[in-house]
Amino acid sequence: MSVTPEPPSSSAVGRGPIPVSGAWREGDPLGSRKLAHVVVDRPFHLEGGGVLRQVTVAYETWGRLNEDASNAVLVCHALTGDSHVAGRPDEVPSTGWWQGMFGPGRALDPQRSFIVCANVLGGCQGTTGPASVDPATGRPYGSSFPVVTIRDMVRTQALLADHLGIARWNAVVGGSMGGMQALEWAVMFPHRLSSMVIAATTAAASAQQIAWSMVGRRAILMDPNFAGGDYYDRPAGSGPHAGLAVARQIAQIHYRSEEVFAERFARKLVDPLDGSGSFRLDQRFDVEGYLDYQGEKLVRRFDANSYLRLNKAMDLHDLGRGRGGVEAAVRRIVVPSLVMSIRSDMNYPPYQQYRLRDLLRDAGTRVGFYEIDSPDGHDAFLTETSQISPLVAGFLDGANDLRSIL
Amino acid sequence: MSVTPEPPSSSAVGRGPIPVSGAWREGDPLGSRKLAHVVVDRPFHLEGGGVLRQVTVAYETWGRLNEDASNAVLVCHALTGDSHVAGRPDEVPSTGWWQGMFGPGRALDPQRSFIVCANVLGGCQGTTGPASVDPATGRPYGSSFPVVTIRDMVRTQALLADHLGIARWNAVVGGSMGGMQALEWAVMFPHRLSSMVIAATTAAASAQQIAWSMVGRRAILMDPNFAGGDYYDRPAGSGPHAGLAVARQIAQIHYRSEEVFAERFARKLVDPLDGSGSFRLDQRFDVEGYLDYQGEKLVRRFDANSYLRLNKAMDLHDLGRGRGGVEAAVRRIVVPSLVMSIRSDMNYPPYQQYRLRDLLRDAGTRVGFYEIDSPDGHDAFLTETSQISPLVAGFLDGANDLRSIL
Repeated sequence: MSVTPEPPSSSAVGRGPIPVSGAWREGDPLGSRKLAHVVVDRPFHLEGGGVLRQVTVAYETWGRLNEDASNAVLVCHALTGDSHVAGRPDEVPSTGWWQGMFGPGRALDPQRSFIVCANVLGGCQGTTGPASVDPATGRPYGSSFPVVTIRDMVRTQALLADHLGIARWNAVVGGSMGGMQALEWAVMFPHRLSSMVIAATTAAASAQQIAWSMVGRRAILMDPNFAGGDYYDRPAGSGPHAGLAVARQIAQIHYRSEEVFAERFARKLVDPLDGSGSFRLDQRFDVEGYLDYQGEKLVRRFDANSYLRLNKAMDLHDLGRGRGGVEAAVRRIVVPSLVMSIRSDMNYPPYQQYRLRDLLRDAGTRVGFYEIDSPDGHDAFLTETSQISPLVAGFLDGANDLRSIL
Repeated sequence: MSVTPEPPSSSAVGRGPIPVSGAWREGDPLGSRKLAHVVVDRPFHLEGGGVLRQVTVAYETWGRLNEDASNAVLVCHALTGDSHVAGRPDEVPSTGWWQGMFGPGRALDPQRSFIVCANVLGGCQGTTGPASVDPATGRPYGSSFPVVTIRDMVRTQALLADHLGIARWNAVVGGSMGGMQALEWAVMFPHRLSSMVIAATTAAASAQQIAWSMVGRRAILMDPNFAGGDYYDRPAGSGPHAGLAVARQIAQIHYRSEEVFAERFARKLVDPLDGSGSFRLDQRFDVEGYLDYQGEKLVRRFDANSYLRLNKAMDLHDLGRGRGGVEAAVRRIVVPSLVMSIRSDMNYPPYQQYRLRDLLRDAGTRVGFYEIDSPDGHDAFLTETSQISPLVAGFLDGANDLRSIL
């Protein structure tokens, strides 16, 4: 069910030496991205107390904005996503991460909608983040890049909406960290969207989610090549790759599920026994080869400083902060919503979405709910587009008559 | 339900500089341990092809062996356990890890049984392991210590049984990695035990279990203080503590459960906001303080090289290896057994013990089965002794009439 066919688990990513950071850097080709300079030479105050002197948002669009600007859909990406919802690599380091949602008749149909996706604040694919040049110093922010929150990301997306002339999104859509952004949109700007679609997300990060984030961060911080976060001047091959790869590998285990791992890898070996049949400490099972591949793949297209900040933003995600709690925050939401769970998701377990569904219903909004039956774990929001796309398409068609999907 | 009361999650372990290794080293006080030199100046061939010239087993005993040596119970410890099933620290670095199972009327009753627990081969609390002196060089094995398997551990325990004059254990008991040893005992030496008690264990490590092991190992290998495994000569404070701590923290998350973490930590902060209310990247939630505490606690009593080897031994655990598969291996088992699952165990999920129960029944042996109702996750085999002890005591009393617990 994978959108992107996965390679043999034992293959190497292998495209030459790994740059110190997988971030897009000024001067790199933009590919299909556009840049919006949404904050120029004035302070952008972050929720956590930091200040950015300028903010650029890298985004992509598909389709055409209609006459009354009523057909715009904002797609919000997850932790290691970027603006490239759909399309070939073309100078953007990954194929479209939600390709299966995309196309005529599907949930994201550029013939009907004007689809927008922006790289998040603190990210590394063109939007201002730790690898960007700090105008105060002329050098990459690195360790000095401040903590950002989901709310900060949403405020930059609102500035992008202004820039594009979109007063109100027809829908804001996202899974995982993307769902956090969609939730914040509905709370912060209740009249700037007409509907919300969220999958595999939560009203507030749980202790276990924070714990998983933490161990990934610790792996990065421990990597001697992390150099306190100021590694951008180091030669290719000497970035914090080992730490970022371990962080990704930790995450990859709980993005998937026990049953997928058992079926796909079982106890096969990727490194064969040598002639003597001896066991070696570094002899890998197939699942280890797969995780190595996933680690290297991320390292080539992501930035360790961004990973730290975006993980922290997810840990800090709490819809109720400063609003009298989650229930009170949800009562600010006025739009209809579609909430999706994944049966096998151990990272964002279904009870978290049940709670959101119930709070939204208690708040008097119309809610569609669906639990995706998939063994793919958290990643099912990416892989099960054949289930998700019709649900979302149906919801967007009938956002005023939710009974069709209830 | 914790056996050992846990400290406030924010407290530091704090007992001075951390030695490079938490291993027992020659010359350190033995405490309540005894040493058995079970292999002296002859090769001990390991399953994985390595050879050890001598093997010492550190063990503890409680109670008295009766006249016909029929009351001996072997307790097998888990990954980071040691011989200290019960008792105060007394020069052994931890309080008894299964204290709640121990005492008059309980499962492990020294007034009735002669209870034995040995530190496993490759461990670090007195039995030959990577921190031991290699007689060939006069220096610690370190990186040269070979891969050991669960079967190798069991063979050293069999040599210890010979040393103690025990032809047949009344029971071999263990949870997690201890359960792997008990299973191997029953397959390798079917007539040297009268019964088997296993909890939260598996017939063969699953791909997900291997994946979790792997990321912990990677964290250790990445620590610059690991120095390729030859760190024993380094000054105190400069051992591979960060790597071992991260490995422990990764494990600790899936040893417990989402519900325990949510209830205990929720979203409390351990590091307060500063006066300005700013968010910092290094500001910890309560669960992060708890994991830091757990990491440091392990680092003070364990050895990174042992952690690598014992994790690998667990990954290599496959009851069916070289025996025509798991079913065929289980058919070698002739003794009655008690199999226990834990409802909330995400590390060794109940389906793994259901399978063992079913295979044992199919093999024609008598099997008692019980699923522990606990939110404590995998660690419930340590914490839920108030449930487990009566079950095991009843089983040992009536091993010939299992209907009492079926």
